[in-house]
Amino acid sequence: MPKISQRGVEMPASPIRKLVPFSDSAKARGLKVYHLNIGQPDLPTPKIAIDAIRNVSRKVLEYSPSLGIRSYREKLVGYYAKYNINVAADDIIITTGGSEAVLFAFMACLNPGDEIIVPEPAYANYMAFAVSAGAVIRTVPSTIEEGFALPSIEKFEELINEKTKGIMICNPNNPTGYLYTRKEMNQIRDLVQKYDLYLFSDEVYREYIYTSSPYISACHLVGIEDNVVLIDSVSKRYSECGIRIGALITKNKELQKAINKFCQARLSPPLIGQIAAEASLDVDPSYLRDTYDEFVERRKVLIDGLNRIPGVYSPIPMGAFYTMAKLPVDDTDKFCTWCLNEFEYEGQTVFMAPGSGFYTTPGLGKDQVRIAYAINKEDISKALVVLEKALEAYPGRTIK
Amino acid sequence: MPKISQRGVEMPASPIRKLVPFSDSAKARGLKVYHLNIGQPDLPTPKIAIDAIRNVSRKVLEYSPSLGIRSYREKLVGYYAKYNINVAADDIIITTGGSEAVLFAFMACLNPGDEIIVPEPAYANYMAFAVSAGAVIRTVPSTIEEGFALPSIEKFEELINEKTKGIMICNPNNPTGYLYTRKEMNQIRDLVQKYDLYLFSDEVYREYIYTSSPYISACHLVGIEDNVVLIDSVSKRYSECGIRIGALITKNKELQKAINKFCQARLSPPLIGQIAAEASLDVDPSYLRDTYDEFVERRKVLIDGLNRIPGVYSPIPMGAFYTMAKLPVDDTDKFCTWCLNEFEYEGQTVFMAPGSGFYTTPGLGKDQVRIAYAINKEDISKALVVLEKALEAYPGRTIK
Repeated sequence: MPKISQRGVEMPASPIRKLVPFSDSAKARGLKVYHLNIGQPDLPTPKIAIDAIRNVSRKVLEYSPSLGIRSYREKLVGYYAKYNINVAADDIIITTGGSEAVLFAFMACLNPGDEIIVPEPAYANYMAFAVSAGAVIRTVPSTIEEGFALPSIEKFEELINEKTKGIMICNPNNPTGYLYTRKEMNQIRDLVQKYDLYLFSDEVYREYIYTSSPYISACHLVGIEDNVVLIDSVSKRYSECGIRIGALITKNKELQKAINKFCQARLSPPLIGQIAAEASLDVDPSYLRDTYDEFVERRKVLIDGLNRIPGVYSPIPMGAFYTMAKLPVDDTDKFCTWCLNEFEYEGQTVFMAPGSGFYTTPGLGKDQVRIAYAINKEDISKALVVLEKALEAYPGRTIK
Repeated sequence: MPKISQRGVEMPASPIRKLVPFSDSAKARGLKVYHLNIGQPDLPTPKIAIDAIRNVSRKVLEYSPSLGIRSYREKLVGYYAKYNINVAADDIIITTGGSEAVLFAFMACLNPGDEIIVPEPAYANYMAFAVSAGAVIRTVPSTIEEGFALPSIEKFEELINEKTKGIMICNPNNPTGYLYTRKEMNQIRDLVQKYDLYLFSDEVYREYIYTSSPYISACHLVGIEDNVVLIDSVSKRYSECGIRIGALITKNKELQKAINKFCQARLSPPLIGQIAAEASLDVDPSYLRDTYDEFVERRKVLIDGLNRIPGVYSPIPMGAFYTMAKLPVDDTDKFCTWCLNEFEYEGQTVFMAPGSGFYTTPGLGKDQVRIAYAINKEDISKALVVLEKALEAYPGRTIK
């Protein structure tokens, strides 16, 4: 039998998906499992998008252009303009989910062995795409005590060497919910400019910012226009995770040409998804407002509830729909597995993502879990009761 | 401005898409352009698939499982069984088009620097995915004089060294239409077994085989079950190129686990596409029969017509819907561009894919074009007249 590649060995397993079998077996045992692990909102997709799919009148479901349907790209120009992101249709490349945007960005910008610096905890799949590209992720830990603010920029600069090609951020942040301030973004800009780095900025949660602090996009930063690669997706803003439509935005013409070749090789992004995504741009503003209001309420229920549980601490997330919370346990990998595998409270249990999967520094995140508030308030409340009971019963509890 | 990656430089541009601007300008000049370049059938998608999309009743377009929707994978088992391909649902991984199946196969099987051997001419994007994986494609030329039969297996063996990890074939073949014989497939099997190589086999055209010769799938070959990676797609068989649904099939459990991690990283294949693809499995047999009959007729019109043009030669393709034809010109890159850019006959011209894009050996394919018969018979006939006139008028004609 031939060997698999080293990349296939190194490719990390998803910190969440590895627990799915335990969740399935908990359900098989008849338990109600509260999915605090999941980044898929339960909120309805806009009716206007579903209707666009239901009204497809094409006779042939043919390839769309490699860079995406032109009318959709043109319409996105207006969407981004609302956020003061001033780009042309040619700067917007439609991808198969935000995932493909990250993959293509790494593939086209990074050579094997090149390094990018990422504040951690971070979205686990950045690591997977870096492994695909043969690139190396160097991390700078942010801390729960500082609310996961940007670590001091000197920590980034210390890691810079001749292999360093970029910085990657997620803003608002998955998994922490942190929103980078203008000052922090300017610090990043200065560093990017000083060393002529790429700035990969994943901003798929821009709709969900819960403070009056401004949203500073990487595209707002003056002087590094050719360095910025914006990663985007419609998955979260319209509850359309399944249609796999994202975007890669850059003003760097040379990079656009390179990305274009990766796009041509895979022929086209999904046609029906683009039809739904384009229709979604005409969604009634009340949809986004209602979704926003719902997340505001869920956030309050979750964060207040978590901080009421003895030994638990969560900073207030300022955006997205996740928080990294600290639990009084020995090891959240063990605890999350135990919740699914051994624990139940009145026929219920909880599924959370162990924190270690969001860090590359060994040992970090073992007292943290990522909790998503993508389920309804009532279920969040019930899940909090179950979590409290689980923490009381767990043999590896650290704070008595 | 930071540099793009070496991979971004080396990534080949599509041999077809690079001519699209010339085609667009020909259309802008008011010309009717016959698209003999295109692998997108003009035939209707099955109504049952369009209806499945139009009847989508979900409220949330959520992620599907990373490996694909279970019911679809299970139903595919029966589809493959009809071709004596005996696989379990667990052996079938749903991908975003056949493109992603090739990418994941190379990523999970090949280390940077590893080599795979491919008979040429070959589908140009294999090269693109090899560049993505850092792998090297070594080619063995097949010749038009021998009807693009498998080159002698000794030519493959000569290229094998410690870096060689696999052989890739496309059967029936794009771009040549060649169907590998049982004897040829057994030769490949023996070589794969002798050196414990992967056999990547792209069999997306299995519905379109026009002789009574048997279809020998790589999955039929006994003794190399753990070496075979089958690449598949619904694009061609149901005229569903736009939905981006393919599959990677392997019985190699270790490889399945590695591919699974790549699947998890990109979260899921397109949901709506899978719904359409699953529905397509219930298409009335008359759809496939009618499609088949249509291609048989188109093939006859095209191949007879080509061979009637002085100086032109096409072997008879036994499958798929392409042929590689020899033209009496100096350089088909120039000729194909000239057809779009300078030539017209009664307000018409032709768009063909230059042969050189399907070869990696320098100089090969310069007298060949790939012609697809994915357009209707009447248009093929008209295109043949235009082609004949173009060859008469072309200044770089070699045979007077």
